Amino acid sequence: MSQARDLRPGEIALELPASYDAGVYFIGRIRTPFKSRGECPKSPAQSDAIGRVELDPRYAAGLADLALYSHIWLLYWMDQARRDLMQQVPAHLDHPRGTFSLRSPVRPNPIALAAVELIGVEESTLSVRKVDCIDGTPLIDIKPYFPSIDSFPHARRP
Amino acid sequence: MSQARDLRPGEIALELPASYDAGVYFIGRIRTPFKSRGECPKSPAQSDAIGRVELDPRYAAGLADLALYSHIWLLYWMDQARRDLMQQVPAHLDHPRGTFSLRSPVRPNPIALAAVELIGVEESTLSVRKVDCIDGTPLIDIKPYFPSIDSFPHARRP
Repeated sequence: MSQARDLRPGEIALELPASYDAGVYFIGRIRTPFKSRGECPKSPAQSDAIGRVELDPRYAAGLADLALYSHIWLLYWMDQARRDLMQQVPAHLDHPRGTFSLRSPVRPNPIALAAVELIGVEESTLSVRKVDCIDGTPLIDIKPYFPSIDSFPHARRP
Repeated sequence: MSQARDLRPGEIALELPASYDAGVYFIGRIRTPFKSRGECPKSPAQSDAIGRVELDPRYAAGLADLALYSHIWLLYWMDQARRDLMQQVPAHLDHPRGTFSLRSPVRPNPIALAAVELIGVEESTLSVRKVDCIDGTPLIDIKPYFPSIDSFPHARRP
């Protein structure tokens, strides 16, 4: 599955394992104003866009109590991304970076993580603020945001 | 796959879909001092335990530049958890809660999310502080922690 084609200078691709180790259910879809990757903001920090999380109604009972939180985590599956690059050249940089030091969709398991503001819950649909993904992105999990374990305002980055 | 057995009063199980929508690679293992769920701290906030992240060496090139960050996200697969409960009674509560308002391992996609302090990187192994999972837990992703999009110290919880 290694795609030696389509590498920028300095990028490193690997041969992915022949089979998966576990399976994921898509439990819903995220609806946003962004119809293509080009339209997406570079990160949720640059977005005040309102989105809708449409959970498959079979999971609706799992939303009980969620409205008590101001912020939630969305985990979603970036199904348009290749998975085999271990070093990649982000569009905003001119040199390769290790995949695990980036929030790029390109990674062995293309799972994205976004903290969003929860505006409302109605049946199996959530209204959220600060979404940055493509319209229709598959949802794989929702979690409450806990400042005690999730918030590190002084974490250091280069 | 619904397990009507083993439900506590108030818990709700569902029939999971017949097939998965996507596949996950286990890219390494997390080594911790905790040999069973009973030994694990309830959350990373209650743990100063040092752990080791043993990445499969095939992915080692992806760690470049990671040491520049003080904190990282570990995403891991809680392979001992059932996946079909939409409402569950946590051990520390006496009433059922919606699965998506809990950080419980029991959820349709048993993916855990933990921000840990990065102590060091050596070849394909990371030393980290504040791990709370069972020794040997499968790793599925590593991401840098970005305070600008991940830290919400004033997020509200009940």
